[in-house]
Amino acid sequence: MTIIKVSATSRTSAVAGAIAGVVRDTNRAEVQAIGAGAVNQAVKAVAIARGYLEEDGINVVCLPEFTTVEIEDKERTAIRLVVEPR
Amino acid sequence: MTIIKVSATSRTSAVAGAIAGVVRDTNRAEVQAIGAGAVNQAVKAVAIARGYLEEDGINVVCLPEFTTVEIEDKERTAIRLVVEPR
Repeated sequence: MTIIKVSATSRTSAVAGAIAGVVRDTNRAEVQAIGAGAVNQAVKAVAIARGYLEEDGINVVCLPEFTTVEIEDKERTAIRLVVEPR
Repeated sequence: MTIIKVSATSRTSAVAGAIAGVVRDTNRAEVQAIGAGAVNQAVKAVAIARGYLEEDGINVVCLPEFTTVEIEDKERTAIRLVVEPR
Protein backbone atom coordinates (compact mmCIF):
# COMPACT_ATOMS: atom_id res chain seq x y z
CA MET A 1 0.00 0.00 0.00
CA THR A 2 1.46 3.32 -1.09
CA ILE A 3 0.81 6.26 1.20
CA ILE A 4 1.15 9.64 -0.46
CA LYS A 5 2.72 11.92 2.12
CA VAL A 6 1.95 15.60 1.72
CA SER A 7 3.75 18.53 3.34
CA ALA A 8 2.89 22.20 3.55
CA THR A 9 5.27 22.86 0.67
CA SER A 10 4.02 20.06 -1.60
CA ARG A 11 2.83 21.24 -5.02
CA THR A 12 -0.90 20.52 -5.24
CA SER A 13 -0.84 19.65 -8.94
CA ALA A 14 1.98 17.13 -8.42
CA VAL A 15 0.16 15.52 -5.50
CA ALA A 16 -3.06 15.48 -7.53
CA GLY A 17 -1.26 13.67 -10.35
CA ALA A 18 0.09 11.12 -7.88
CA ILE A 19 -3.36 10.56 -6.38
CA ALA A 20 -4.95 10.10 -9.81
CA GLY A 21 -2.20 7.70 -10.86
CA VAL A 22 -2.48 5.54 -7.75
CA VAL A 23 -6.30 5.43 -8.03
CA ARG A 24 -6.05 4.41 -11.70
CA ASP A 25 -3.51 1.69 -10.84
CA THR A 26 -4.87 0.32 -7.56
CA ASN A 27 -8.41 1.78 -7.30
CA ARG A 28 -7.59 3.53 -4.01
CA ALA A 29 -5.15 6.12 -2.70
CA GLU A 30 -4.21 7.11 0.83
CA VAL A 31 -2.99 10.65 1.40
CA GLN A 32 -1.39 11.55 4.71
CA ALA A 33 -0.78 15.03 6.11
CA ILE A 34 0.40 16.41 9.44
CA GLY A 35 -0.37 20.01 10.33
CA ALA A 36 -2.69 22.64 8.90
CA GLY A 37 -0.49 23.62 5.96
CA ALA A 38 -0.09 20.02 4.85
CA VAL A 39 -3.77 19.19 5.31
CA ASN A 40 -4.69 22.22 3.21
CA GLN A 41 -2.39 21.14 0.36
CA ALA A 42 -3.73 17.58 0.60
CA VAL A 43 -7.38 18.66 0.36
CA LYS A 44 -6.66 20.95 -2.59
CA ALA A 45 -4.81 18.09 -4.29
CA VAL A 46 -7.81 15.78 -3.80
CA ALA A 47 -10.11 18.43 -5.31
CA ILE A 48 -7.82 18.67 -8.36
CA ALA A 49 -7.45 14.87 -8.60
CA ARG A 50 -11.25 14.53 -8.62
CA GLY A 51 -11.25 16.63 -11.79
CA TYR A 52 -8.49 14.53 -13.40
CA LEU A 53 -10.30 11.28 -12.61
CA GLU A 54 -13.69 12.61 -13.72
CA GLU A 55 -12.16 12.97 -17.19
CA ASP A 56 -11.55 9.20 -17.04
CA GLY A 57 -15.14 8.61 -15.91
CA ILE A 58 -14.03 7.80 -12.35
CA ASN A 59 -16.03 9.56 -9.62
CA VAL A 60 -13.94 9.47 -6.45
CA VAL A 61 -14.89 10.44 -2.94
CA CYS A 62 -12.70 11.32 0.02
CA LEU A 63 -12.90 9.70 3.45
CA PRO A 64 -11.04 11.77 6.05
CA GLU A 65 -9.88 10.02 9.20
CA PHE A 66 -7.45 10.51 12.05
CA THR A 67 -4.40 8.30 12.31
CA THR A 68 -1.35 8.17 14.52
CA VAL A 69 2.13 8.10 13.06
CA GLU A 70 5.48 7.80 14.75
CA ILE A 71 8.06 10.42 13.80
CA GLU A 72 11.44 10.42 15.50
CA ASP A 73 10.06 8.29 18.34
CA LYS A 74 7.19 10.69 18.95
CA GLU A 75 3.53 9.98 18.26
CA ARG A 76 1.88 12.55 16.03
CA THR A 77 -1.73 12.78 14.95
CA ALA A 78 -2.05 12.84 11.18
CA ILE A 79 -5.00 13.27 8.88
CA ARG A 80 -5.47 10.51 6.36
CA LEU A 81 -7.60 11.11 3.31
CA VAL A 82 -8.68 7.86 1.68
CA VAL A 83 -9.60 8.46 -1.96
CA GLU A 84 -11.64 5.80 -3.71
CA PRO A 85 -14.41 5.41 -6.27
CA ARG A 86 -17.85 6.21 -4.98
CA MET B 1 -29.16 25.56 1.59
CA THR B 2 -27.18 26.03 4.78
CA ILE B 3 -23.44 26.51 4.35
CA ILE B 4 -21.42 25.74 7.46
CA LYS B 5 -18.62 28.29 7.53
CA VAL B 6 -15.49 27.21 9.36
CA SER B 7 -12.64 29.41 10.55
CA ALA B 8 -9.20 28.56 11.89
CA THR B 9 -10.53 29.07 15.42
CA SER B 10 -13.70 27.00 15.02
CA ARG B 11 -14.02 24.13 17.49
CA THR B 12 -13.91 20.89 15.54
CA SER B 13 -16.41 19.06 17.77
CA ALA B 14 -18.94 21.89 17.43
CA VAL B 15 -18.54 21.96 13.65
CA ALA B 16 -18.80 18.15 13.56
CA GLY B 17 -22.06 18.33 15.50
CA ALA B 18 -23.40 20.92 13.05
CA ILE B 19 -22.40 18.78 10.06
CA ALA B 20 -24.03 15.68 11.53
CA GLY B 21 -27.21 17.62 12.35
CA VAL B 22 -27.52 19.11 8.86
CA VAL B 23 -26.90 15.72 7.22
CA ARG B 24 -29.53 14.08 9.44
CA ASP B 25 -32.04 16.86 8.60
CA THR B 26 -31.35 17.48 4.92
CA ASN B 27 -29.18 14.52 3.82
CA ARG B 28 -26.34 16.82 2.76
CA ALA B 29 -24.05 19.42 4.29
CA GLU B 30 -21.76 21.98 2.73
CA VAL B 31 -18.75 23.12 4.72
CA GLN B 32 -16.79 26.15 3.57
CA ALA B 33 -13.30 27.18 4.64
CA ILE B 34 -10.82 29.83 3.53
CA GLY B 35 -7.15 29.42 4.39
CA ALA B 36 -5.05 26.55 5.69
CA GLY B 37 -6.09 26.83 9.33
CA ALA B 38 -9.78 26.84 8.46
CA VAL B 39 -9.46 23.97 5.97
CA ASN B 40 -7.62 21.93 8.60
CA GLN B 41 -10.41 22.48 11.14
CA ALA B 42 -13.05 21.66 8.51
CA VAL B 43 -11.41 18.35 7.53
CA LYS B 44 -11.00 17.32 11.17
CA ALA B 45 -14.66 18.19 11.78
CA VAL B 46 -15.73 16.01 8.83
CA ALA B 47 -13.65 13.12 10.21
CA ILE B 48 -15.40 13.48 13.58
CA ALA B 49 -18.84 13.88 11.96
CA ARG B 50 -18.29 10.65 10.02
CA GLY B 51 -17.96 8.90 13.37
CA TYR B 52 -21.14 10.53 14.74
CA LEU B 53 -23.14 9.58 11.64
CA GLU B 54 -21.75 6.05 11.53
CA GLU B 55 -23.40 5.53 14.92
CA ASP B 56 -26.70 6.32 13.15
CA GLY B 57 -25.85 3.91 10.35
CA ILE B 58 -25.14 6.73 7.90
CA ASN B 59 -21.91 6.35 5.92
CA VAL B 60 -20.98 9.77 4.58
CA VAL B 61 -18.29 10.74 2.12
CA CYS B 62 -16.63 14.08 1.50
CA LEU B 63 -16.36 15.77 -1.89
CA PRO B 64 -13.79 18.59 -1.81
CA GLU B 65 -14.07 21.31 -4.43
CA PHE B 66 -12.86 24.84 -5.06
CA THR B 67 -15.30 27.70 -4.97
CA THR B 68 -15.07 31.47 -5.18
CA VAL B 69 -16.60 33.68 -2.54
CA GLU B 70 -16.80 37.42 -2.32
CA ILE B 71 -15.60 38.99 0.91
CA GLU B 72 -15.59 42.77 1.28
CA ASP B 73 -15.76 43.16 -2.52
CA LYS B 74 -12.77 40.88 -3.05
CA GLU B 75 -12.86 37.43 -4.63
CA ARG B 76 -11.35 34.72 -2.48
CA THR B 77 -10.86 31.07 -3.29
CA ALA B 78 -12.49 28.84 -0.72
CA ILE B 79 -12.55 25.12 -0.23
CA ARG B 80 -15.99 23.59 -0.08
CA LEU B 81 -16.43 20.14 1.41
CA VAL B 82 -19.71 18.57 0.40
CA VAL B 83 -20.70 15.86 2.89
CA GLU B 84 -23.34 13.38 1.80
CA PRO B 85 -24.23 9.70 2.15
CA ARG B 86 -22.20 7.38 0.01
